[in-house]
Amino acid sequence: MAIANFAPQSVPDAATYVPPVADYAFLLGEAFGTDVVARATGGALSASDAGDALEAAGEFAAEVFAPLDRVGDQQGSQLVDGNVRTPDGFKEAYKSFAEAGWVSASVAEEAGGDGLPGSVTAALSEFWNASNAAFALCPGLSHGAIRAIQANASDEIRAAYLPKLVSGEWTGTMNLTEPQAGSDLGAVRTMARDNGDGSWAVSGQKIFITWGDHDVADNIVHLVLARTEGAPEGHRGLSLFVVPKFTLDAAGAPGERNSVVTVGLEHKLGIHASPTCVLQFEDATGYLVGELNQGLMGMFVMMNEARVGIGVQGLGVADRAYQRALSYAHTRVQGAVLGLPDGTPIAGHPDVRRLLLSMSSRISAMRAFSVLVGDVHDRAESDGTGALAELFVPILKSWLTEQAVHVSSDAVQVHGGMGFIEETGAAQHFRDSRILPIYEGTTAIQSNDLVGRKVLRDGGQTIGQVFAMIREQLQALTATGDTTATRVAERTERAVASAERATQALLGFASSPRDAFAVSVPFQEMLATLVGGWMHATIATAVLGHSERSADDVRRLSEADFYSAHHLAQVHALAETVAAGEIGE
Amino acid sequence: MAIANFAPQSVPDAATYVPPVADYAFLLGEAFGTDVVARATGGALSASDAGDALEAAGEFAAEVFAPLDRVGDQQGSQLVDGNVRTPDGFKEAYKSFAEAGWVSASVAEEAGGDGLPGSVTAALSEFWNASNAAFALCPGLSHGAIRAIQANASDEIRAAYLPKLVSGEWTGTMNLTEPQAGSDLGAVRTMARDNGDGSWAVSGQKIFITWGDHDVADNIVHLVLARTEGAPEGHRGLSLFVVPKFTLDAAGAPGERNSVVTVGLEHKLGIHASPTCVLQFEDATGYLVGELNQGLMGMFVMMNEARVGIGVQGLGVADRAYQRALSYAHTRVQGAVLGLPDGTPIAGHPDVRRLLLSMSSRISAMRAFSVLVGDVHDRAESDGTGALAELFVPILKSWLTEQAVHVSSDAVQVHGGMGFIEETGAAQHFRDSRILPIYEGTTAIQSNDLVGRKVLRDGGQTIGQVFAMIREQLQALTATGDTTATRVAERTERAVASAERATQALLGFASSPRDAFAVSVPFQEMLATLVGGWMHATIATAVLGHSERSADDVRRLSEADFYSAHHLAQVHALAETVAAGEIGE
Repeated sequence: MAIANFAPQSVPDAATYVPPVADYAFLLGEAFGTDVVARATGGALSASDAGDALEAAGEFAAEVFAPLDRVGDQQGSQLVDGNVRTPDGFKEAYKSFAEAGWVSASVAEEAGGDGLPGSVTAALSEFWNASNAAFALCPGLSHGAIRAIQANASDEIRAAYLPKLVSGEWTGTMNLTEPQAGSDLGAVRTMARDNGDGSWAVSGQKIFITWGDHDVADNIVHLVLARTEGAPEGHRGLSLFVVPKFTLDAAGAPGERNSVVTVGLEHKLGIHASPTCVLQFEDATGYLVGELNQGLMGMFVMMNEARVGIGVQGLGVADRAYQRALSYAHTRVQGAVLGLPDGTPIAGHPDVRRLLLSMSSRISAMRAFSVLVGDVHDRAESDGTGALAELFVPILKSWLTEQAVHVSSDAVQVHGGMGFIEETGAAQHFRDSRILPIYEGTTAIQSNDLVGRKVLRDGGQTIGQVFAMIREQLQALTATGDTTATRVAERTERAVASAERATQALLGFASSPRDAFAVSVPFQEMLATLVGGWMHATIATAVLGHSERSADDVRRLSEADFYSAHHLAQVHALAETVAAGEIGE
Repeated sequence: MAIANFAPQSVPDAATYVPPVADYAFLLGEAFGTDVVARATGGALSASDAGDALEAAGEFAAEVFAPLDRVGDQQGSQLVDGNVRTPDGFKEAYKSFAEAGWVSASVAEEAGGDGLPGSVTAALSEFWNASNAAFALCPGLSHGAIRAIQANASDEIRAAYLPKLVSGEWTGTMNLTEPQAGSDLGAVRTMARDNGDGSWAVSGQKIFITWGDHDVADNIVHLVLARTEGAPEGHRGLSLFVVPKFTLDAAGAPGERNSVVTVGLEHKLGIHASPTCVLQFEDATGYLVGELNQGLMGMFVMMNEARVGIGVQGLGVADRAYQRALSYAHTRVQGAVLGLPDGTPIAGHPDVRRLLLSMSSRISAMRAFSVLVGDVHDRAESDGTGALAELFVPILKSWLTEQAVHVSSDAVQVHGGMGFIEETGAAQHFRDSRILPIYEGTTAIQSNDLVGRKVLRDGGQTIGQVFAMIREQLQALTATGDTTATRVAERTERAVASAERATQALLGFASSPRDAFAVSVPFQEMLATLVGGWMHATIATAVLGHSERSADDVRRLSEADFYSAHHLAQVHALAETVAAGEIGE
């Protein structure tokens, strides 16, 4: 194909973050054939209402969070005399974030928040993470703590901690990992001794505690996984405790400093502003959350949300990296561009164009899926999409985080040599991205969850439902009669068939689990890639219903075409790999 | 397949670099069906002689270079009062490197070096780069300067500069890039004015000058691309000059400081120890190398070697990252390992095993190809493999450097959360690797060269020769009658067929060059992936000729099996992508 109408775009400066508000209006309002916000809220809110909130959030992200992203990377959080000092401007930014109500916006109504639907909070989360991934972890952890307390704790603990966490005056943390207990939490050794007065004395060392100490809020509410005396070994002997940095005085305000000491701060590849702490608990005062030995169960209630949250963090980092690359590619002039006038920027070179479309087509697919996952969770209780919601979580988490690494790597490549220079900013996203496929359950953990609990356990029933949904969408797409649509539908149809065959092969490994788990990551990649094709089919169907095509619509159809030729083709290769099972002697 | 004999390996400490001497003995001595060292040297040297040199080089790399890799990363090179100061220990290490004869070892005989064959210098280069990629760039640049001077300069200039460069007493640099002239050197603006006394006055600013200033040797010989007064615009008006840091006195020793000023040092994502300089030339004294306006031609003679050198740097970085991951995976215990006893380290988990095999199977294939490329270059003049040598260069450079990024990313993943902590060491390789697909011609530049000059120009003749060579190898592999061999051969045969179809599609784009260049990178990836399968078929054929199988042989067969199921399958997907041409409106 000859390039029809390459128009050098006017793009914002690389330092400017542009929240994709219009894309979310399309996704929330029409891409899925209905206003998903209205459906989730029973008509109380519409996509258009949500759009107003997103407009305001985007402005906050661009104006307050984004300018601190590089400062945060350069200064990092520092441990000074036992206390963590966050980078310049973080304290003020956090205060205005909380005061503007952005912590409570994403909290469920039953916990005292605004109860925005999951499809909308996904968008908010993307904005915070794109503008400042290190910063966004702080309220992200608070949400986890809120969820754990709300779901498990006594009324007394709820009353004492939830309002301040929801308002953002205090923040929360998750204390799970220990040096010998990472992916395997059954190995946790931190002990809690009953003080006999309703409180517990918690002792042990926790590592990798995100925002484990800081100076942006008045108190920190640690949720700590610990073992009690006489408890069973392994996973079944863990209980959950709330251990505040400052114990509460009679009025419920932060009083005495609890004996939780920040003994170290990690030197990390990225997200420098996020303080990753080693916390030492020495008979720290804590309170049991939920039942004894039900600690892991208590964490499970928030695990899905946390995993979705980190998936969306990947989407945010990917989009910010892409925006930088787009800006650079439309301003940098280098070499004659084949078939285009002198002075055409590098965005016109066939390969730079390929890279940019490769990135944007993945980002659009991931964003649509993020909205769908939010929507499916919103509907899970009412319309029985629960199994689907469960299936989607490990796909979302692993796909969006792995792609954050790939897309931010591509963004460096678009910059050429300048991408390797820290001042350009592209390198930071590449560094930041690398933790995403690791924390909150590695890609292997997600893929094993997908294969073991979500596919093998129900004999492929739920995944079969997904294949049927994709086929239904392809029928609608084909029915448009559009040439591009037909091509996209044909490619996607073949991908579904490959994925079905691979699923059959996987089900054949039910009695040889090493084979299944040796290909769980390729299986997850295959499914995620197919889901991307599904999302593009969905988007394209909606676009082709428009009587006139906007510039965004033209881009969306190009992305669908590109994705199906460049990314979806991988499904066949991955399907072949899945069928091979474990290899090697 | 159930895992037959997972034996927890005893592996060296992560800080120890283990040069793959035994692998090179196999590759040089027998993998390609002959002793390639003996063939290249007409029997003057054998693979066994080369093995002694590699043993010594490996020891030097492990004991001198490797311990400085982290020091170099942490301290970086610094600009102090206008002079670059290298990290602690670098000066002493460089001196012992030169004194041991490792600079001259890789220099051609006609330039005064030892004239080791290309297949052997590839191995040396891997060791230097694996143990210290930032350091290895210094002698790497000297080799480029030596080659450019030897091929183009007058006897006088050769006599003045070559001996000191070859001995390593002085080092060399390449001054090409300027802010407006990166991939497009036709835009170079640096000017050289004839002083009328046989010297020239060179003025301008050069950026991204690797090892452009330092304190490890007594003089630096800059090769500078500049334009002379009245020269044509663009590429045809560039001439090459030698501009020493210190001009030579009557005795030929470094005398006056030339007016070349280091005005800046870049803050980079990785290879911190390698000083990346901004050099300002102000009427600096230089001498013309070769003919006026033939400067780019003068650079071309060294370009292939430089590209091969950076490709091999990718192999080195990948192997070092892999070795760290292997060490960690065999010492870290976490979670119960399916089907294996308690206390089995994480290397036994199906997915960690998959990742390790994925890495090692790519590294083995790349290492074999590196030897083949060295060998083909050694033979190019005598047996007419020149076109093959030309075809292989862009594949080697792009494949090995792109995989360095992927493998070092996988190595971080194997470490879990610890991979993100700088002290672990895995993160450094991930950072270091990211420049490799960019400098010395980006992956797009390599791929365009491959598609335009090496495939379209001869109508697919040379690449057809490669397909025939692969098929011949597959016949030999199939003839072994081994079960694994048959499976590997079948998968590789299908991949050849896909690649042939994609090549036909590409040839169909001869009259629509944007289509060809829009898929040049997928085409290169496809070919590189196929070449990896070819290398494994070659290795497996040799292994199956052994009367007894060593542990290395068992590993090699597992790698061939794994590669053909996990990596080679990608060829089909990439072939489909290639056929699509340029996409988007």
